[in-house]
Amino acid sequence: MDETIRQGFFADRTKLNLEDYLIFDYYFESTINPEQAAAHLCQEQSTAQWKRVGVDEDLRQRFGAKVIELFVERELDKPSYPQLVPSDLKSYGCRVKIAHPHGNFGPKLPNLLSAACGEGTFFSKGISVIKLFDIEFPDSFLRHFEGPQFGIEGLRDILDVHDRPLFFGVIKPNIGLSPEPFAELAYQGWLGGLDIAKDDEMLGDVEWSSLQERAKLLGRARLKSEKETGQKKIYLANITDEVDRLIDLHDIAVAGGANALLVNGMTTGLSAVRMLRKHAQVPLVGHLPFIAAFTRAPYLGVHSKLITKLQRLVGFDVIIMPGFGERMKTPENEVLLNIQECFKPLGHLKKALPVPAGSQWAGSTPALYEKLKTIDFGIVPGRGVFQHPMGPKAGAASLRQAWEAFQNRLTLEAYSRDHPELKAAIEAFDK
Amino acid sequence: MDETIRQGFFADRTKLNLEDYLIFDYYFESTINPEQAAAHLCQEQSTAQWKRVGVDEDLRQRFGAKVIELFVERELDKPSYPQLVPSDLKSYGCRVKIAHPHGNFGPKLPNLLSAACGEGTFFSKGISVIKLFDIEFPDSFLRHFEGPQFGIEGLRDILDVHDRPLFFGVIKPNIGLSPEPFAELAYQGWLGGLDIAKDDEMLGDVEWSSLQERAKLLGRARLKSEKETGQKKIYLANITDEVDRLIDLHDIAVAGGANALLVNGMTTGLSAVRMLRKHAQVPLVGHLPFIAAFTRAPYLGVHSKLITKLQRLVGFDVIIMPGFGERMKTPENEVLLNIQECFKPLGHLKKALPVPAGSQWAGSTPALYEKLKTIDFGIVPGRGVFQHPMGPKAGAASLRQAWEAFQNRLTLEAYSRDHPELKAAIEAFDK
Repeated sequence: MDETIRQGFFADRTKLNLEDYLIFDYYFESTINPEQAAAHLCQEQSTAQWKRVGVDEDLRQRFGAKVIELFVERELDKPSYPQLVPSDLKSYGCRVKIAHPHGNFGPKLPNLLSAACGEGTFFSKGISVIKLFDIEFPDSFLRHFEGPQFGIEGLRDILDVHDRPLFFGVIKPNIGLSPEPFAELAYQGWLGGLDIAKDDEMLGDVEWSSLQERAKLLGRARLKSEKETGQKKIYLANITDEVDRLIDLHDIAVAGGANALLVNGMTTGLSAVRMLRKHAQVPLVGHLPFIAAFTRAPYLGVHSKLITKLQRLVGFDVIIMPGFGERMKTPENEVLLNIQECFKPLGHLKKALPVPAGSQWAGSTPALYEKLKTIDFGIVPGRGVFQHPMGPKAGAASLRQAWEAFQNRLTLEAYSRDHPELKAAIEAFDK
Repeated sequence: MDETIRQGFFADRTKLNLEDYLIFDYYFESTINPEQAAAHLCQEQSTAQWKRVGVDEDLRQRFGAKVIELFVERELDKPSYPQLVPSDLKSYGCRVKIAHPHGNFGPKLPNLLSAACGEGTFFSKGISVIKLFDIEFPDSFLRHFEGPQFGIEGLRDILDVHDRPLFFGVIKPNIGLSPEPFAELAYQGWLGGLDIAKDDEMLGDVEWSSLQERAKLLGRARLKSEKETGQKKIYLANITDEVDRLIDLHDIAVAGGANALLVNGMTTGLSAVRMLRKHAQVPLVGHLPFIAAFTRAPYLGVHSKLITKLQRLVGFDVIIMPGFGERMKTPENEVLLNIQECFKPLGHLKKALPVPAGSQWAGSTPALYEKLKTIDFGIVPGRGVFQHPMGPKAGAASLRQAWEAFQNRLTLEAYSRDHPELKAAIEAFDK
């Protein structure tokens, strides 16, 4: 490799002021010398050209991205995605850490993503596939971000529930009901024991169910259920919409009686969530549309755990994510990494509540607790509550009963003998 | 398959009012019966549960997504991404068209993406991988979108150039120069023959080069170059930033003298671009960061041509996209499909100018013309202008000369004999 290139784009980590750098962690496969490929990667994502013609200068020292760690993880007879490059090329599967000077763009998410997953990343010479696994943030960068406003503790305070997982329920039928019957379903769910009744991520502000009307009716139903149960409740309204409506829809929903708001962050853009966070009076909940499109391929795109980290960074208090089980097509280890991202130390940022989703029912709570060994999670059944054969009130009751059984060290079967709601749930949903 | 499911989620296209539907076109691989997989796909992306317990209703007729076309394209001994599912499963590679009622969410991009590429798509039962290839929009949906404000003709009017491709140049060094030397480079580029000098997609509003100062100095240099050349010029400023700053940055840049604006649309979110479009006084140019992350895998994610279509839908006048050549890792046919998306009839929407990017120089213009057989494109060299051995003015001149050679039916070599700028370009960049 050209020695000038090496000097400009490789650095000794101990000689850098790490407060000035983000660390990008990639897996890539190169069909050329890995060091050369890694240097190209740095060049393309920062100072592609570092001097003017005829001027003696080198902008790389301050502005160049720099390789601080590189190793060949495996050698491959052919690339992992032979559809993308000639399949007979010997490839090196490499792990690289790059120190990228954040002063190149500042504490701004769209610009961060442009640097970390832009043209420089995906179109770098000699690299056939690449996946961004992680970004490490120094405090100098993190302090510009608000993060969750409420966090797990703030959310628990609103509900006054501190000793168990939280019970979300997706009101179903999710699409097509007018606000009145929809509110009745939520009401039944709350009476039965839901903490949080939520709009489906597909249900927005629509002509046949305006957010204004829906928030008003569900807000009213929420207060009624609080009075009758003596428990605090949350109506989680989905305000996902064009970004120039998010602030207005926040105000409309909160005025109506929603006390938490759902946004499909990757479809609005995470920057819009950050904007909303600055204005928000209630907890914000992130949902998962679009994320699988760029996280699912094992060696291409972005790792989902980083998206969870970014969702926390922009201020989601709760992150609904793909959970365990075949339908969610997410390796168990990846689910666990995503859950950990909600809890990990991250500067001054509060923790977010993870809600691993996917075809849940009463039995999911104990099962999740067994895996996670913490009560700091939510479950979010839809049909498991609202298609319960005895109706949504019974569906919600079955969630509580399953947790009671677990606390009393009884099997669900044993506890279901004098709890018909749980019994019916086992019969309908335990597959 | 259960006959109730078939009735609810399959339809005869001729019996639907197609103005009420978007058509989603997917490739998927199923490890179960393809009809059943397609029905699940409809169910999960629309009326996951279509009736309340104990109520005789069926919300699917109006709100359900419906399969209108399905065929098995190929049978596979194992899934295309054996890393994702057990690799010994026989799979069906299927193409499906789904009519999705747009009244479920309305003419809103985040909600459209949630429906077309959300949990229902990527977590549908029995489907191992899935890629969204296209969305067809009826006029009833399109009429809510503004599309390009200027389009190709409007952009040509600003420059008063109607008879050739447009010459963009990415000012380099892209990162690290203060506005004064940066403006000088742009000025030289314009003098040499650039139509449009642009900020790199990585250069935003930063402390060492504030957009305000940069726009002022480059605006001034632009006017000076216009006076000296007698030609109209554009300074294309990159305003990519947090979405709540886009409108302000538009105003700052335009007040300073930028007369077109660049946004990395997938990192701000396309909805933010739509917001900006409503306010914009100048052409908007889209750049490609992040798009490869979810378009590059052959059978997973979203096809890039659809992202080009969506970029046009939200109002980009110019779309910079991966072009031809090895470095851009994009099959030639895919580049062509993306270019066609800029031109295709799309309701009342104007055409956008395609700018296929990637390691370009003087020779790229004739080469692109030969492929496209139209002058309605731009080229966008960076180093091909600003690392030209004789400097940026000569680099820009070499672009013009190569096009002149082509128009005069001369080889670049022949024409370069009395055009030293072209000669030097050939020596430096023709690899």
